[in-house]
Amino acid sequence: MRNIITIFGSTGDLTIRKLLPAIKRLLEEKLLEKDTLVLAIGRRNYQTVEYLDFVKKNSPHKFDVDFIAPNLEYFKLDIDALSDYQRLNEKIQSYGETRRVFYLAVGPDLLTSIASNIGLSNLVTKGDLNASITFEKPFGQDLISAREINGLLWQYFDEKQLYRIDHYLGKEMIQNILTVRFANKIFEGSWHNHAIKNVKIIAKETDTILSRAGYYDTSGALKDMVQSHLLQMLALVAMEVPLSYQSEDLKNEKVKVFDKLRYDRKSLVIGQYEGYLNEPNIDQDSKTETFVFLKAFVDTPRFKGVPFYLMTGKALEEKESVIIIEFEETPEQHKWDLPLKTNKLYIKIAPLDGISLTLNSKVPGLRNDVEQVDLEYCIACNAVGNMPEAYEKLILDMTEHHKSLFTRWDEIELSWQFIDKIKQDIKDKQIPLTIYKKPSDLYDLITEKEEAF
Amino acid sequence: MRNIITIFGSTGDLTIRKLLPAIKRLLEEKLLEKDTLVLAIGRRNYQTVEYLDFVKKNSPHKFDVDFIAPNLEYFKLDIDALSDYQRLNEKIQSYGETRRVFYLAVGPDLLTSIASNIGLSNLVTKGDLNASITFEKPFGQDLISAREINGLLWQYFDEKQLYRIDHYLGKEMIQNILTVRFANKIFEGSWHNHAIKNVKIIAKETDTILSRAGYYDTSGALKDMVQSHLLQMLALVAMEVPLSYQSEDLKNEKVKVFDKLRYDRKSLVIGQYEGYLNEPNIDQDSKTETFVFLKAFVDTPRFKGVPFYLMTGKALEEKESVIIIEFEETPEQHKWDLPLKTNKLYIKIAPLDGISLTLNSKVPGLRNDVEQVDLEYCIACNAVGNMPEAYEKLILDMTEHHKSLFTRWDEIELSWQFIDKIKQDIKDKQIPLTIYKKPSDLYDLITEKEEAF
Repeated sequence: MRNIITIFGSTGDLTIRKLLPAIKRLLEEKLLEKDTLVLAIGRRNYQTVEYLDFVKKNSPHKFDVDFIAPNLEYFKLDIDALSDYQRLNEKIQSYGETRRVFYLAVGPDLLTSIASNIGLSNLVTKGDLNASITFEKPFGQDLISAREINGLLWQYFDEKQLYRIDHYLGKEMIQNILTVRFANKIFEGSWHNHAIKNVKIIAKETDTILSRAGYYDTSGALKDMVQSHLLQMLALVAMEVPLSYQSEDLKNEKVKVFDKLRYDRKSLVIGQYEGYLNEPNIDQDSKTETFVFLKAFVDTPRFKGVPFYLMTGKALEEKESVIIIEFEETPEQHKWDLPLKTNKLYIKIAPLDGISLTLNSKVPGLRNDVEQVDLEYCIACNAVGNMPEAYEKLILDMTEHHKSLFTRWDEIELSWQFIDKIKQDIKDKQIPLTIYKKPSDLYDLITEKEEAF
Repeated sequence: MRNIITIFGSTGDLTIRKLLPAIKRLLEEKLLEKDTLVLAIGRRNYQTVEYLDFVKKNSPHKFDVDFIAPNLEYFKLDIDALSDYQRLNEKIQSYGETRRVFYLAVGPDLLTSIASNIGLSNLVTKGDLNASITFEKPFGQDLISAREINGLLWQYFDEKQLYRIDHYLGKEMIQNILTVRFANKIFEGSWHNHAIKNVKIIAKETDTILSRAGYYDTSGALKDMVQSHLLQMLALVAMEVPLSYQSEDLKNEKVKVFDKLRYDRKSLVIGQYEGYLNEPNIDQDSKTETFVFLKAFVDTPRFKGVPFYLMTGKALEEKESVIIIEFEETPEQHKWDLPLKTNKLYIKIAPLDGISLTLNSKVPGLRNDVEQVDLEYCIACNAVGNMPEAYEKLILDMTEHHKSLFTRWDEIELSWQFIDKIKQDIKDKQIPLTIYKKPSDLYDLITEKEEAF
């Protein structure tokens, strides 16, 4: 059956930087069939050739459009004109039976009106598993708005037709968490609160908000990063063993984690980088946090008592996404007065994918001292050819109806509940916003509160 | 207190190749005090200068004797003349109160007569912890002869004064086994039969017997390698957690392992390399084995049911000493039809010291396949300066009365019991001796018997 990928927001950044290059590579690698059709939707009065020229000009990497040209058509559409959707539907119908992905690469303000019109025009009919709607976070601004949006989507579509993208889940090492955790006895047998001391989930950026002021100032680090990426990582680390490797079983276990998730208010640190208020389009008394640190707990028998430290922020000293699983000391280290250094498993997500493991070893030489050594494996360094981009994996999974890497509504719902609670506490308890000149301003504050971090 | 190291067999290979270089380095590193005296005992009528010349000429590495010269004296002694020992005693007494190590770097035929004379001449008096006797394997040829030798030694000396050298125990990674095992939670918590599938203890040599025919033909691989080095390694892996890191507590646990050790006769493979009978000084119908493989079990609650595969031999394809701990598959690997590759911890003893760990990881790319990756740490590569030789550590420990790396009589006794049983079986059950042209002749035979190997 022919795949038709319809992209709303085809002149936007996401389409030009991520989606078209990913589709091009999937075509090159023959992972998308040759007859795949990409319909680039836009309001501008372009011919396909003109659109491709626009893509070429606006692509930061001088994107070679030739390879995708035979598979792509530009389609002019006014997103508020239902008749335009009907025209699009006629066009798609003319290809006979097809598998259709509607990728809404648009801002949150346009999501619901486009989705409604897709439903009203029967571009996607409820329950038709050959048609799906894909969209990106933010999934609302809080629990109430997320429920509203979702209510509208469920009016027209089944949950099974909805693909909520968290592009972090497409990253190589995030997918690798399950393999590392469940296919290695030394970890699988130690993955519980008798052996794990704490878990750190960290996503640091050096960038400031760049040109995203409009979105970012209404969001902040908690909503932009914690609600989605960090909580998803936490769930993969903390969940029980799922019944199977399949999507629904995974999500069932992730939801149970969110259900048992709580945070320790006293641990909370929020910050805003100095100069944020001077960024263009930022409200002069904005209290938006560009940094957040908190200690969370998952109250399951497996992880009861194990702190999960979450930390993310902008304008920090390095760009790094990493999960650090720190194991306990051994009884012998205590009994025999050995140095109390621990095993740490690093799951490195960015900038380089890899695994490393810190072990205790004897210092080479004549004395019985103990030192820490790092055993490293760099996935990116050893991968043959190019590492696939997250979006390649995500688009491929969409066309093949694999939903493991997409988030289900109940995951969203519970993660908003968690975030809303924190936001409410920040307001009610007047948690101070630290203005940071340099990252150490924050780190000092954190170690004051949490020695173990 | 001044250290006096008296070496019997001072013109022998061991002294020239290992002991003097080790002492020289310990002096250089100031780990032996400047006033340390080395008495080189020999029957030849040398002046000290002549002896040093002899050492220089016979050292394979053009040993620089200058550094050791101020600390060394040659002492002429007829090993059968008690009066010579008395003369030696007078000399040593003249230095006042000293700590004395008597290193018997001689063949097993001379051991008892030298030891007796040392005792009779009061060079070492029973119970004096400032005087000790050091000697190398073989500690007898079987249980009966070992008991005889030991009976004689105990007549003159306390067990605490006896330092039986297994130079393997001085090797960096053998000493590291305890740290790796007890100071790393991911291993410490998995070090039992629920998580460990099997253990391989391997010492392969490319060398043939070289010039050691006289000794080797009466010994063979079982007595030369298994009774000592391989069983010592097995004990360090299999023992219970000792009460302390101290020598006696370690030995108490090692002895318990030997007590519960048995082997599976059906697994036994013995071999002799083709050409062995043509080596000089080898009996033409010699049945001496130059290769042995066997499966052993340690019937303790911790290791019940876990095979310990021991393998050692000469004229093999590579020189390699390694311990491989193979962990079980996870329940999820079975349930989810994942590849059944396992975690393996390699403790690499020779030629390069190091640790490596095999993990399962997702194959980078768009599919969810699993691959094995190696996390490596090369101790030798990362050590600052020179790695100490086993003998440096052993000599230092002797002078400091640390006995962890030396074997206690009951260890020897039980390991001979184990070896005698196998030797008896080889005779009684007529276990065939495989003449091997190439190592694969043996390996094919082994995998026929033991698929898991």
